[in-house]
Amino acid sequence: MIRTRLLVASLSMLSLGIARAEAIPDNIKEQAIALRDNAMQESIAYDVVESLTMEVGPRSAGSTGDAAAVRWAVEKLKSLGFRNVHTDEVVVPHWDRGTLDVRITAPYPQSLVATALGGSAGTPAEGIEAEVVRVESLAELRALSQEQLQGRIAYVDHVMERLKTGAGYGVSTRIRSCGHVVAAERGALATIIRSAGTSSHRVAHTGSMRANNVPGTIPGIALANADADILTYAVQTGERVTVRLHSSARDLPQAMSANVVGEVPGQGELAKEVVILGAHLDSWDLGTGAIDDGTGVAIVIAAAKLILDAEESPRRSIRVVLFANEEFGLSGAKKYAQAHANSVDQHVVGLEADFGPGAVWKFSSQVAEDALDIVTELHQLLEAIGIELGDNKSSGGADLGPLRKAGMPVLGLSANGTYYFDYHHTADDTLDKVDRDDLNQNVAAYVTTAYVAANIERNFGRLPLDTSEKTCAPEFD
Amino acid sequence: MIRTRLLVASLSMLSLGIARAEAIPDNIKEQAIALRDNAMQESIAYDVVESLTMEVGPRSAGSTGDAAAVRWAVEKLKSLGFRNVHTDEVVVPHWDRGTLDVRITAPYPQSLVATALGGSAGTPAEGIEAEVVRVESLAELRALSQEQLQGRIAYVDHVMERLKTGAGYGVSTRIRSCGHVVAAERGALATIIRSAGTSSHRVAHTGSMRANNVPGTIPGIALANADADILTYAVQTGERVTVRLHSSARDLPQAMSANVVGEVPGQGELAKEVVILGAHLDSWDLGTGAIDDGTGVAIVIAAAKLILDAEESPRRSIRVVLFANEEFGLSGAKKYAQAHANSVDQHVVGLEADFGPGAVWKFSSQVAEDALDIVTELHQLLEAIGIELGDNKSSGGADLGPLRKAGMPVLGLSANGTYYFDYHHTADDTLDKVDRDDLNQNVAAYVTTAYVAANIERNFGRLPLDTSEKTCAPEFD
Repeated sequence: MIRTRLLVASLSMLSLGIARAEAIPDNIKEQAIALRDNAMQESIAYDVVESLTMEVGPRSAGSTGDAAAVRWAVEKLKSLGFRNVHTDEVVVPHWDRGTLDVRITAPYPQSLVATALGGSAGTPAEGIEAEVVRVESLAELRALSQEQLQGRIAYVDHVMERLKTGAGYGVSTRIRSCGHVVAAERGALATIIRSAGTSSHRVAHTGSMRANNVPGTIPGIALANADADILTYAVQTGERVTVRLHSSARDLPQAMSANVVGEVPGQGELAKEVVILGAHLDSWDLGTGAIDDGTGVAIVIAAAKLILDAEESPRRSIRVVLFANEEFGLSGAKKYAQAHANSVDQHVVGLEADFGPGAVWKFSSQVAEDALDIVTELHQLLEAIGIELGDNKSSGGADLGPLRKAGMPVLGLSANGTYYFDYHHTADDTLDKVDRDDLNQNVAAYVTTAYVAANIERNFGRLPLDTSEKTCAPEFD
Repeated sequence: MIRTRLLVASLSMLSLGIARAEAIPDNIKEQAIALRDNAMQESIAYDVVESLTMEVGPRSAGSTGDAAAVRWAVEKLKSLGFRNVHTDEVVVPHWDRGTLDVRITAPYPQSLVATALGGSAGTPAEGIEAEVVRVESLAELRALSQEQLQGRIAYVDHVMERLKTGAGYGVSTRIRSCGHVVAAERGALATIIRSAGTSSHRVAHTGSMRANNVPGTIPGIALANADADILTYAVQTGERVTVRLHSSARDLPQAMSANVVGEVPGQGELAKEVVILGAHLDSWDLGTGAIDDGTGVAIVIAAAKLILDAEESPRRSIRVVLFANEEFGLSGAKKYAQAHANSVDQHVVGLEADFGPGAVWKFSSQVAEDALDIVTELHQLLEAIGIELGDNKSSGGADLGPLRKAGMPVLGLSANGTYYFDYHHTADDTLDKVDRDDLNQNVAAYVTTAYVAANIERNFGRLPLDTSEKTCAPEFD
């Protein structure tokens, strides 16, 4: 059905020649602007993230907090008046970080602030004590021989770059998820990395160390930046540096969690089509999950709520999906895409919020070429709130990945990530890091975009199927 | 001897009438300015604080780190060429914080980031679980009845004010050291306070809870600010809030530590007189003691070293004293004053560095009235590095307190404290918080002041004896 409409639209545009019609009619633009400007005055989003962080707090996959978050989300969506509120059960891995003790034992004994990486194996009960071999990159680690690493602890000391785009995180996560694989191949007993974060505070940065859900065979831990400085200082004295690790991290049996869904129903012939607004409900266990991804949850709920409360229903349905277990394997995203494999074409476009509460500065997309004029016109509505136009290479976000790979176009609203990695995945991810004005600017951007996507006659086409997979092989570095 | 000289100086000034001579001769001013400007280019201070934090790290009274710090200091002072380097043994209390677990159990279960306050009692092994009664001040706590607090946990939720002077800390430390006394009198089982600090990071602020070294009878803990927000949110819902505490904090047998002393010997008839440059060698156990008081140690060592390396010896001796256990009862300061009770008059003036590495913005004093012209002239040398003139009410610092109370005048160089309490007494007190330029500006201020004090003919008179003691009685609030 959608493909037919797309063809019709394309033909009608062709017949218009250079005098192509506006992609977004004026009445839709006016309504979108009204919603946008209204969003800047609201407190819905802040109230939602406050409630989630204060009443639920940490909610890592499989934990009691995770279950509490699912109950919270159902109740919250219902109390806000969303329709078709329901859960879709998802099996999730359940990893417990246990306790961790890390200390330099020579030449300068000192305890270090560290955290086990998600999915790390624990140490034997008596711990691991070994010499540290320091490198600054994954390439340097790959260049080490068995002889150089055997029986030792690999220390990858890469300093993450602070960037508005957050692009420095890619290099760091590659080290996090593949460093231990490379080190284990060379006989290392454990891997220590400098936190994949920019914080100068004594909080270490966790995150999954599992590439493609393959369990790590050796413990993987991250040091807070200040503690990486201490270890590096010791190594740079030229003396033999030994570290002792005790970790009781372990896998528990898989657990049940759920995607939580609520809708703003469409009206008329396009009502079966869906504009998806996604965020993830789970968080890491160290903080209260305010910016990752409490604000995402709050932004998509608040944006949808504004449309829900408008006088007229949208033409397409707007579906808020709060995904289970993004952090430790994208369980909810995969489950959703599988469960909707037969109706994926009804998902006309997706929009995800999972980059914290910094003000949105860029609007990008990954849509069919002939829908780019919609993106350009949509951007004109976002320019007034400080958003520039990006390219057509947006990933759309991790949770929308499986749907995008199945052909769903995505729109991307990039939050300013300059300070995001000061808090992300650390104990510092708490409510006080959320700026109300920036949060509302996000809601304004999301409501504008979602409203237009749900109401215009045309859509964003489809994307080619994508079956690529990335592994820890060097060619993907 | 000093009193006689002072009398002579006063008489000679009187005889000069209004045409009073300059307090600081031009040649001394010129040399002081040269030292001051040279200090801004040096790396001594940074090297010292780097070495102390990286090679020793945490060094709370009685710990192995404390003993390592004493060895480090002796070696550092000797290697820098100081004379008469020696230790003066000091008996110190030895408290161990053990482990701490704090969580809200109802209505919204959540783990909280907290730290035991220095000197806290532990909980019974099974922990303490009780209802929380929240107040915002010590006055509100005093107003509670036995009935209101009996069997409950007192929560004093005072938000420390961020100020350049650090003055907000006074209110907060009063709560820290007396809150548990007031609460215990009313039957409370434990005291929780919001951290006496301004950090928005997930690091709680420790510090002594013992007023006048009287052990606390109930556990006292501090929550990180974000965690106090969580507890306050729960209380403000109006529901009954319960918290569970487990703490294994305990007192260990007293231990031996030491004041570490090194000198720049004076030359000539004033050589027996001493200008004291003080800082404390101990730190709390959570951070590496970079700003409290690693930078103080670095500043006084670097300032004295610049004078040591000058062509001519100073007239008075400059004595660097690195005091033992400032944090948990001023053991070193008291011991020094006792040991020098008979020679206290030889200590012509003292200068302490114990407020972090922020740039010095104010020069104040507590000297005899008729020496204020020296202070005013000295200030003219400090104005060029951004320092204003304060009043004549400087405390001179905690470690110089016993000497000041015994009559020794003090000079005070106030560092900018705006950000000091973001790090102070927390795990975040690490080297990366030290700005090299601000640190060197401190060295410049201290070397200027110390050089002048050590070389001018006149001195700063004496202060009246002070035998006052402050207790937890309400009149001292």
